[in-house]
Amino acid sequence: MQAQIDATPEIVTAGLLVIGDEILSGRTKDKNIGYIAEYLTNIGIDLREARIVPDVEEEIVDALDAMRVRYTYVFTTGGIGPTHDDITADAVAKAFGVPLRVDPRAVALLQQRFGTAPLNEARLRMARIPEGGELIHNKVSGAPGFRIGNVFVMAGIPNVMQAMLDEVAPTLKTGVKVLSHSIRADAREGDIGTPLGEIAKQYPGVSIGSYPFFDEARGPNTNIVIRSRDPSLLAAAAQAVEAMLAQVRAQRPA
Amino acid sequence: MQAQIDATPEIVTAGLLVIGDEILSGRTKDKNIGYIAEYLTNIGIDLREARIVPDVEEEIVDALDAMRVRYTYVFTTGGIGPTHDDITADAVAKAFGVPLRVDPRAVALLQQRFGTAPLNEARLRMARIPEGGELIHNKVSGAPGFRIGNVFVMAGIPNVMQAMLDEVAPTLKTGVKVLSHSIRADAREGDIGTPLGEIAKQYPGVSIGSYPFFDEARGPNTNIVIRSRDPSLLAAAAQAVEAMLAQVRAQRPA
Repeated sequence: MQAQIDATPEIVTAGLLVIGDEILSGRTKDKNIGYIAEYLTNIGIDLREARIVPDVEEEIVDALDAMRVRYTYVFTTGGIGPTHDDITADAVAKAFGVPLRVDPRAVALLQQRFGTAPLNEARLRMARIPEGGELIHNKVSGAPGFRIGNVFVMAGIPNVMQAMLDEVAPTLKTGVKVLSHSIRADAREGDIGTPLGEIAKQYPGVSIGSYPFFDEARGPNTNIVIRSRDPSLLAAAAQAVEAMLAQVRAQRPA
Repeated sequence: MQAQIDATPEIVTAGLLVIGDEILSGRTKDKNIGYIAEYLTNIGIDLREARIVPDVEEEIVDALDAMRVRYTYVFTTGGIGPTHDDITADAVAKAFGVPLRVDPRAVALLQQRFGTAPLNEARLRMARIPEGGELIHNKVSGAPGFRIGNVFVMAGIPNVMQAMLDEVAPTLKTGVKVLSHSIRADAREGDIGTPLGEIAKQYPGVSIGSYPFFDEARGPNTNIVIRSRDPSLLAAAAQAVEAMLAQVRAQRPA
């Protein structure tokens, strides 16, 4: 039996589900998507999709079911507090077809925070964990998130979510990190679009993004971001882009 | 023939599709979702869902097709520039099953900006509009967005997108605006969760959201946001919440 050679670097993917009416009404401006996107990129996980859905059980279940079969991991934020509008745990239990029960481990965590007097009904809501779920501790608030299957359920409050993500990150499978290289073009996007597209065609294993911005000193300008898992491909594509930019600049009227 | 009486206020809904690898990698932090959410709420349109997808044609088409049959309107941001990674127009044309062609009206707009010399291939990309599309002008950049069917395709750069939204807003059907009333509870969320849930059950036509925050002076605190299209229902629910809060405060140990 021969050893299998697998030249494809492992790719670990994720979907993100942001749950909350307040984000869709614009009352609260989401701060979690950008943070999680950058965090996952830095540990070698590709965020492939994010969705924001309202506090409606059916919407949460549908989005979860669409994403959890598609990606290695799904992260959710929001909807795990003590009030009637916190229905994320209910929706996750429903998606997985398991009962949602007050979990003694979660009760113990909450009692560390709120004292040994019996927890009221609202706080007990925060101890409801779908059967088979593992708690996600956090150092900021007492209330845990949880993991079930490939789904990680986290708080919506940014500093609590961040503490949970730190807790979870070491347990995640990570892939080969995408490397990136940024080049400031000192040219307008429309002046480099055609040759840049030709370079993109020559390097199919490399993603080349072009991001226009307004430069106070020079006016319209462009950042080119080259991304690849392969450092030598990345370097070759970057060199091709630099050579193209030098040529464009040389042809520019003085 | 009797006149029909329709007691249901018209509800106009929207989905938002944010297109771009740079948002999912975390390199660029989205600033459009919160802006559009608030803008639509203020003109009486309910944003029901937002999705962020990569620069992959099939992903854009799938998300568009899922949303455009579900909501009154779909707005997209991103991917309409002059470079190879700008593929939104291609994806929209594909979703609608129509050809994508260089549109003379768009060429004329671009030439107002770039002079009468022939546009290069990259800039002509920005003039490609799906057949049947109407241009969305904007006062910031020369390049137009477009509307086709119930889909509005806008730029990703925030100030350009905002100018396009201003252009489009007066043409939109709008529903009865959702009114909202915020109450600062001066109580911990876990201490009011149970009675708040009872009020929510008593007012099914009202959405009551509970948002914990940390107050420098008092510690853990909660904002309660009550939302409804019906001003008298809103006032009644707000009164019930205020009465409940007064009772919780009166029971608090001095």
